[in-house]
Amino acid sequence: MKASQFFIATLKEAPADAEVISHKLMMRAGMIKRLGAGIYNYMPMGLRVIRKVEGIIREEMNRAGAVELLMPVVQPAELWQETGRFDKMGPEMMRVKDRHDRDFIIQPTSEEVVTDIARQELRSYKQLPKNFYHIQTKFRDERRPRFGIMRGREFTMKDAYSFDRSPEAAAKSYETMFAAYKRIFDRFGLQYRAVAADTGAIGGDLSHEFQVIAQTGEDAIIYCPTSDYAANIELAEAVAPATPRAEPTAEMVKTLTPGKSTCADVAAFLGLPLTKSLKSLVLATDTLDEQGNPAGSTVWLLLLRGDHEMNEVKVGKVEGLKAGFRFATLAEIDEHFGCKPGYLGPVGLKKPVKIIADRTVAAMSDFCCGANEADYHLTGVNWGRDLPEPDLVADLRNVVEGDPSPDGQGVLAIERGIEVGHVFYLGTKYSKAMNATFLDETGKPALMEMGCYGIGVTRILGAAIEQSHDARGIIWPDAIAPFTVAICPIGYDRSAEVKAAADALHDELLAAGVDVMLDDRGERPGAMFADWELIGVPHRVVLSDRGLKEGQVEYQGRRDEAATKVAAAEVAAFVKGRLKA
Amino acid sequence: MKASQFFIATLKEAPADAEVISHKLMMRAGMIKRLGAGIYNYMPMGLRVIRKVEGIIREEMNRAGAVELLMPVVQPAELWQETGRFDKMGPEMMRVKDRHDRDFIIQPTSEEVVTDIARQELRSYKQLPKNFYHIQTKFRDERRPRFGIMRGREFTMKDAYSFDRSPEAAAKSYETMFAAYKRIFDRFGLQYRAVAADTGAIGGDLSHEFQVIAQTGEDAIIYCPTSDYAANIELAEAVAPATPRAEPTAEMVKTLTPGKSTCADVAAFLGLPLTKSLKSLVLATDTLDEQGNPAGSTVWLLLLRGDHEMNEVKVGKVEGLKAGFRFATLAEIDEHFGCKPGYLGPVGLKKPVKIIADRTVAAMSDFCCGANEADYHLTGVNWGRDLPEPDLVADLRNVVEGDPSPDGQGVLAIERGIEVGHVFYLGTKYSKAMNATFLDETGKPALMEMGCYGIGVTRILGAAIEQSHDARGIIWPDAIAPFTVAICPIGYDRSAEVKAAADALHDELLAAGVDVMLDDRGERPGAMFADWELIGVPHRVVLSDRGLKEGQVEYQGRRDEAATKVAAAEVAAFVKGRLKA
Repeated sequence: MKASQFFIATLKEAPADAEVISHKLMMRAGMIKRLGAGIYNYMPMGLRVIRKVEGIIREEMNRAGAVELLMPVVQPAELWQETGRFDKMGPEMMRVKDRHDRDFIIQPTSEEVVTDIARQELRSYKQLPKNFYHIQTKFRDERRPRFGIMRGREFTMKDAYSFDRSPEAAAKSYETMFAAYKRIFDRFGLQYRAVAADTGAIGGDLSHEFQVIAQTGEDAIIYCPTSDYAANIELAEAVAPATPRAEPTAEMVKTLTPGKSTCADVAAFLGLPLTKSLKSLVLATDTLDEQGNPAGSTVWLLLLRGDHEMNEVKVGKVEGLKAGFRFATLAEIDEHFGCKPGYLGPVGLKKPVKIIADRTVAAMSDFCCGANEADYHLTGVNWGRDLPEPDLVADLRNVVEGDPSPDGQGVLAIERGIEVGHVFYLGTKYSKAMNATFLDETGKPALMEMGCYGIGVTRILGAAIEQSHDARGIIWPDAIAPFTVAICPIGYDRSAEVKAAADALHDELLAAGVDVMLDDRGERPGAMFADWELIGVPHRVVLSDRGLKEGQVEYQGRRDEAATKVAAAEVAAFVKGRLKA
Repeated sequence: MKASQFFIATLKEAPADAEVISHKLMMRAGMIKRLGAGIYNYMPMGLRVIRKVEGIIREEMNRAGAVELLMPVVQPAELWQETGRFDKMGPEMMRVKDRHDRDFIIQPTSEEVVTDIARQELRSYKQLPKNFYHIQTKFRDERRPRFGIMRGREFTMKDAYSFDRSPEAAAKSYETMFAAYKRIFDRFGLQYRAVAADTGAIGGDLSHEFQVIAQTGEDAIIYCPTSDYAANIELAEAVAPATPRAEPTAEMVKTLTPGKSTCADVAAFLGLPLTKSLKSLVLATDTLDEQGNPAGSTVWLLLLRGDHEMNEVKVGKVEGLKAGFRFATLAEIDEHFGCKPGYLGPVGLKKPVKIIADRTVAAMSDFCCGANEADYHLTGVNWGRDLPEPDLVADLRNVVEGDPSPDGQGVLAIERGIEVGHVFYLGTKYSKAMNATFLDETGKPALMEMGCYGIGVTRILGAAIEQSHDARGIIWPDAIAPFTVAICPIGYDRSAEVKAAADALHDELLAAGVDVMLDDRGERPGAMFADWELIGVPHRVVLSDRGLKEGQVEYQGRRDEAATKVAAAEVAAFVKGRLKA
């Protein structure tokens, strides 16, 4: 393609409201154009990347046996009422009424519609497994759309849904999709991790996020550099310390710690390592009577090591807290501890509470904690001697760098990621709600086992840029670049030689199936180079009169420090050799 | 592709609510599935056709220099308020509020958004001409969705918008698009006509509908079989009769025609040809005073030949009627004619009215018309002798078969069509409303001249089927068939020879770029053939043990009366020879 047949609209400055680098660079490269909050026009340069992303996804989904269809953007509310999500989904689901005042929604996802198709079309076990997917516009009315297309309101998502006859078969479908996702992300040419994620109420281990690695990512990815272990922070297990609890060596002493109410302040004040201090968090659970009215509450003391953070998902799995918990009120704290927060601890309670200790805490000795008296802490505290063993020991905290890997193969590291894909085993959540059954081998109706598999198509663009850019602009991987090669002729409109050589190279690369852009705009070299560096085309060839006289052109990869001189006659072959297959 | 990797879901019977043949066949072939009124899932078989249609459109749009982008489905109301269409568009435009109670619309089309892009991005005459297009989901909340996807509510449309520096340049862009549309429709392999259409207030002759010919079409297409002339019924000119008005030969006589109030009844009663009778239609126009209050009305007598029909668009172009007209009330008719409808005529008025005669009427002599007296008509009436010449003579009627072609190259014929495309010169309608200017060669801002160019992508499917089907099902043209070739092996699961030959043919055709489907479902031959005939795959190869023993397979084109025996070794070449390029 030639630039004159295309539309290039780069900007020197990004708009002031662009917060993150990918947003800024996409705006500057003319890939997107804001239409409203969280709503963007995909300009020609950006749409080319989207089409390449979609193309790779489509090829690999088809290869994996999934079948593409297309479900509508505007969907009748009835199906969403069947699953209860019409009421449960908050204002992020956009609702609309038609001219006859009937309720519709703008689809945020398509479980209901695809399950409706499946319950009508998949009637026999002989038709299973089946995996339907579509690549379609979604709308989620985010309260605070931001980061450009990373958290937009209208976006494109590939969502696939598998239907199986048994949990075992569903697990196989899951594995097939997991493998397809790995091929997809490999082909994108992005650094990513498939990260185990929490499965919530469904249980099991069939949930993975596909995270594109980027320092600016919102998510923490926990992984073991010396093994395959990877999980998100919600799920990553903090194993019990390998070394058992040490014997007490100190006496329990009450110490004045005036105004020191945080673990860090207390440890610093007392000259103790933070790893010797205990963090006391007071939670509460409410019970209801048979009529659903409040019928009392229970107070829990949650103990973490001073340098650790509570993991809400893990706490939510503790027996007794599964139905939901909250932080205790000041009144509840005073009632049980006789003290205000900042000086709380498990020793000398006014009224008994349930004590749950993190695994690390259970292995601590000679530790420091609040004395349940304002401005006082205890040091040299030891389990068994100074207070009873905790009621419950569990994994309650976020892992930290250096924690042992749960697979025993090394220690954990943490990096940042952007979630762009998710594979998830749904079980019968939707098939049950919508009575999606098939006739099994014995002729009896059975609920379909489902899985769902999403990729945020438009989000891929933002994530790829967050991962890979420099001061000059975007650096696209070959596979999803808007153009793979930019030919930059100097004096295209002045020199017949330059024009002929540039046209010939363009035609030769095009004929070889290379997605090539010939910049025939007649821009000055500096501006032309800056444009293609900003846009992030991975390979560039510069042709000039002077070079051609010497039989040479210049090749430069987007990441290369300097240009490489290449014999003009060899340049097409040279460029092809530099392309990623 | 093999059937086992795909999803085939044919039905013996179409649902009761399917009204037209294309709807019935698409439902039966498993191409679409109803989700709600006018809202359909595109099932895998239907989506393949859509993708092929889109592919052809995209290639030809790009070849014509248009640039693809993607504008959102959910659009802020502000832009639609700028052009006034937020209020002017009726309930067919779906309106929605976001969580912050801001107004949005679900796009029925994209003039506003693309004009907003253009006014920001196209700042200099050097950037013009430019043509942006997208292929995107549209929603129009039809009052009565019907005919399946022919008049659905959610549909896919390709809409392109050109921006030019002058009306002359815009006309050139129009011609480019017109030529691209011809290539697109040629490539679809459909019988179609590009039909001149009315340009309304803009004037000029830059409006064409692309009509797919089908007996069941809603639109009348007027064309001249011996020339290139083609226009829609609104526009097609009824030229003045070639022969001048004959001299009077009869005396004017008042005749009793009791209860005969239609031209047909009167002519039959009097034994006159219908072409000798006059149809009198009474119209009225209202005038307003400076405050916009009703300030009187004018009554018009419109005269057509008894067998002709009024053309509202043409009448609306008559001087004095351009601002709008209505049919006169019974009171107005009585006031001017002293008579009730059914016996009205231009002779002997009670109070003067403006008389406008169709061109054919102006050339009539010895004609019959109402006598302005109940149960009486006049015969032998002649212009000039019995009444003054009409105040105005104009083309007021629909053309009929056999009328002379306006280009003088023959006589007109009429066929039925389905409108699937429209190219239209917009002028500055939107650029003016939205102040979309560019700096011209002299550095002065000037309004962009626009054109718009639509193709109903999903509608093409319905139109193609209405045009081409038989008792057994759909007959797709090669270019947009869901699969081009169906390989039907008999005993694929029983015979190693059949399986090997079928697989080999499948692989060879696939490698040659042919979109081939191998039916490996193990269906019985009758059911298998019926499926592919219903689905409408244009080429079929049947392999059987018996045939292969004789070194033969059977080829049958979807329109062929019978199968052709082909040497098994030659079949791939034979099939390729039968494909449309």
